[in-house]
Amino acid sequence: MKTPKKSNWRSKLHEIIHEADTPVGRVFDIILLVLILLSVVFVMMESVSSIDAEYHQLLYIGEWVITIFFTIEYIARVISVRKPFNYIFSFYGVIDFLSTIPLYLSFILVGSNYLLTVRALRLLRIFRILKITRYVGESNKLKQALLHSRAKIFIFLFAVLIISIIAGTLMYLIEGEKSGFTSIPRSVYWAIVTLTTVGYGDISPATPLGQLIASLIMIMGYGIIAVPTGIVTAEYSKASDYVHVNTQVCFNCGVEKHRDDADFCHRCGKELHPHKNEEPSA
Amino acid sequence: MKTPKKSNWRSKLHEIIHEADTPVGRVFDIILLVLILLSVVFVMMESVSSIDAEYHQLLYIGEWVITIFFTIEYIARVISVRKPFNYIFSFYGVIDFLSTIPLYLSFILVGSNYLLTVRALRLLRIFRILKITRYVGESNKLKQALLHSRAKIFIFLFAVLIISIIAGTLMYLIEGEKSGFTSIPRSVYWAIVTLTTVGYGDISPATPLGQLIASLIMIMGYGIIAVPTGIVTAEYSKASDYVHVNTQVCFNCGVEKHRDDADFCHRCGKELHPHKNEEPSA
Amino acid sequence: MKTPKKSNWRSKLHEIIHEADTPVGRVFDIILLVLILLSVVFVMMESVSSIDAEYHQLLYIGEWVITIFFTIEYIARVISVRKPFNYIFSFYGVIDFLSTIPLYLSFILVGSNYLLTVRALRLLRIFRILKITRYVGESNKLKQALLHSRAKIFIFLFAVLIISIIAGTLMYLIEGEKSGFTSIPRSVYWAIVTLTTVGYGDISPATPLGQLIASLIMIMGYGIIAVPTGIVTAEYSKASDYVHVNTQVCFNCGVEKHRDDADFCHRCGKELHPHKNEEPSA
Amino acid sequence: MKTPKKSNWRSKLHEIIHEADTPVGRVFDIILLVLILLSVVFVMMESVSSIDAEYHQLLYIGEWVITIFFTIEYIARVISVRKPFNYIFSFYGVIDFLSTIPLYLSFILVGSNYLLTVRALRLLRIFRILKITRYVGESNKLKQALLHSRAKIFIFLFAVLIISIIAGTLMYLIEGEKSGFTSIPRSVYWAIVTLTTVGYGDISPATPLGQLIASLIMIMGYGIIAVPTGIVTAEYSKASDYVHVNTQVCFNCGVEKHRDDADFCHRCGKELHPHKNEEPSA
Repeated sequence: MKTPKKSNWRSKLHEIIHEADTPVGRVFDIILLVLILLSVVFVMMESVSSIDAEYHQLLYIGEWVITIFFTIEYIARVISVRKPFNYIFSFYGVIDFLSTIPLYLSFILVGSNYLLTVRALRLLRIFRILKITRYVGESNKLKQALLHSRAKIFIFLFAVLIISIIAGTLMYLIEGEKSGFTSIPRSVYWAIVTLTTVGYGDISPATPLGQLIASLIMIMGYGIIAVPTGIVTAEYSKASDYVHVNTQVCFNCGVEKHRDDADFCHRCGKELHPHKNEEPSA
Repeated sequence: MKTPKKSNWRSKLHEIIHEADTPVGRVFDIILLVLILLSVVFVMMESVSSIDAEYHQLLYIGEWVITIFFTIEYIARVISVRKPFNYIFSFYGVIDFLSTIPLYLSFILVGSNYLLTVRALRLLRIFRILKITRYVGESNKLKQALLHSRAKIFIFLFAVLIISIIAGTLMYLIEGEKSGFTSIPRSVYWAIVTLTTVGYGDISPATPLGQLIASLIMIMGYGIIAVPTGIVTAEYSKASDYVHVNTQVCFNCGVEKHRDDADFCHRCGKELHPHKNEEPSA
Repeated sequence: MKTPKKSNWRSKLHEIIHEADTPVGRVFDIILLVLILLSVVFVMMESVSSIDAEYHQLLYIGEWVITIFFTIEYIARVISVRKPFNYIFSFYGVIDFLSTIPLYLSFILVGSNYLLTVRALRLLRIFRILKITRYVGESNKLKQALLHSRAKIFIFLFAVLIISIIAGTLMYLIEGEKSGFTSIPRSVYWAIVTLTTVGYGDISPATPLGQLIASLIMIMGYGIIAVPTGIVTAEYSKASDYVHVNTQVCFNCGVEKHRDDADFCHRCGKELHPHKNEEPSA
Repeated sequence: MKTPKKSNWRSKLHEIIHEADTPVGRVFDIILLVLILLSVVFVMMESVSSIDAEYHQLLYIGEWVITIFFTIEYIARVISVRKPFNYIFSFYGVIDFLSTIPLYLSFILVGSNYLLTVRALRLLRIFRILKITRYVGESNKLKQALLHSRAKIFIFLFAVLIISIIAGTLMYLIEGEKSGFTSIPRSVYWAIVTLTTVGYGDISPATPLGQLIASLIMIMGYGIIAVPTGIVTAEYSKASDYVHVNTQVCFNCGVEKHRDDADFCHRCGKELHPHKNEEPSA
């Protein structure tokens, strides 16, 4: 009778860690959320030399406290799931591990506590804790739209990259060393900075011809920026359209999502009810 | 018979302050509009050292005149409404109070006249005075579209923030102190400046690897900028369609969504009701 | 018999200047187009000190040649139209006058030849000469979309201005003199540079708090930029919809622009032809 | 029997170079892809002085190897096609020639190896090799949308150019030499940098009036950026609708524009033809 008991203890642990509907699970989630945010804030503050100089001891203790909590949490996650390896090699599992280990490694390897910055990735868990899925359900259309336009946007970004390489090479020849275009890779970097309209100004054309070519690239970039927006908008609109279009259910075959102006079911050919009572809330 | 008289005087005051259709109310509104604009201009001019040096006395007098008017206006507003506390603790009430008090406080507290800048918030009242509601009625669809896409845009901006923290941390490790990435918060600030395509150039990557990562972030940001635009456009389009196309239901066949200018049902050919009384508020 | 002859001569002149279908009118238009472009190039080149130093004499002669041609053209335009004052006080009439007069004024007033830059406005005439109306007919929808969204975009830009004033005032208080926020107007200028994602970097926040606020402003601006795009896109889509929707002409009343799925004319109620032969090219 | 044999050998060559479905053709494509990428990387690395100093010999040999391969490939392409001149004077033919010749020219002309940068254009061949046509088929709608909006976007960019010239001329007069507006062409360059929201900051207004005008230009640019996006989005949306919704005509009632997955006409209820053979190229 030992195993079921243990299993019971394990299921209790599973409930605390993985469920948010029980009071204990809720408290656990809130503590985890606060600690993730704190861990990121600590790493950030440690990187600010003036703050680190004054509060180094405090930040060090804070990090150890968080690391110990994360260690316990990691072990608990591993032993509470039925297939530990599924978790260990999952996306979140790897992040959880990598954000726990650096402080221990710092005893062996000097400078490895820089790896603490991996903790920034734990912020992604916030999406889970805050049950963003609620909203994600709403923005499922967005996800679908992005998936549909994935291939197109990939090609588009690839085209932007090739344009950048060609434009960068051209500007390297025109501008030369003086105005910062010291090599083709640097010129390509400049072209990307320009086409994306970021425009740092760390490198900028100085010769009249260079400024002319740069102007053409910018105006071209102005037209180009319209493309991904157009794609996402249209795909998103289309994904929305489905909702806009579909209101009836065929009483014969149960098919949903008819055109607004359909008189007959497009699947079974039976006449549809006249849509008098349709869309009372629209 | 005293109270009704006082109530009469109060209602007169209410008419002047809150109504714009009467001649006196109209004059009051115009004076208020001019004074709000003037007060902002005065605060702005005082902040320009060269102008302040020459016209300090004039600006000081001007501010006192405006402050006294604002004080009278504030008191009048308080006594003219039936439930003064509703006004006092309302959004506009707090702004009105905060933009009146600083000059008085300057006798007690040194430097408190910096609070005068709160007056910039009074500019929001212009929307009210100019009856922008006329246009707002027209752009109600926009409001609705923004409300509908609020949750999605919030998640989106949150995702941008997390991407910025991760990207900033990465760049801090790669670039180090030399090129301005002196701390993680500063690097995150850089990442936000880059992702939003603002690109000041006060901090910019100097190492080849940093420029490569920055290029990837920029191209990613290029794709990301399409998302909020897509959301707002699609939601706005949807909101527009409803108003523009669908208003009537055919009394004969029950078909909905007729053209605004249709006289006959496009399905059964029966005459539609004249849409005289339709959409009186649109 | 003198007047009709003169009228004939005048109508000949009118034909040359105002019509582009006759060979002479065509040649006149091409000469005018070239001279407008040349005049702008000359003014531009004169402003480049190195070019002006070498070719000053040439440019001076060129400008006089163009000025004399423009003078003749202006006089010809005035005498060739029936109501000269309509032309003189029209938009193009004023521009034509202002781009002709500066060189004459330079005898009286020193530096008045700077007014030559008004000639840049003559570039607008290119739209007329090139018969861009052909395309404008096609992009009439765009014009209509912009007109429809005018009020909304105006309110939007006004809101952006108020946000800029409030944000600028806030940053002035936070950043102070050191990092370039020397006055509120300058800070407002910075806020506009930031919100529009231009981001020169001539002024940029240096304090941590300033950078935090600036980051919030940028992320907000990121969301805001979606709004005008959304408005224009939706309005333009709507304007396009009309074309998409309309293909038939009612054989009974001649009304055009029916819904794609209409069986009966929405104006006269007669049954429409089945749209078998419709849209062969779509 | 010699010619058919030769023709056979030629068709074998044609198969290797032009087809990707055979194993040999596949291997050839992959080698070509790798060599094109390598050639661009080599040219890039050679431009970085620190890398060039160390590995000059290696890069030189690498370039010769690639040049020889490209030479063989070019000759093979010429002799393998039936009409060699069609290839030689085609877009890709010219690029292939120009990216092969520079190293040979370097014996005769000093500095002609800069022409190697033309090789960046060979990157465009990647689109072919990777059979991007697969995706292009999918993004054909995008192509169509861009073609449809070509005229409008051209006019738009032309209008932006004219606005830039006028704005640049204005700023030249206002700002003068001190803040970088040294000539009208330079000011126009600044105006383009500003209107496209790139904003390098190499030139930026310093006078209050200049900053005011610049702010107006920026806010205007903010509204302008919405236009090309709106055009592309609307055209793309329209192009999407056609493909997505309309393909069949009901043989019974002639109604068009059925859903892609409709089995029965939504107007008369008759069964539609199975769409097996429909849209084979989409």
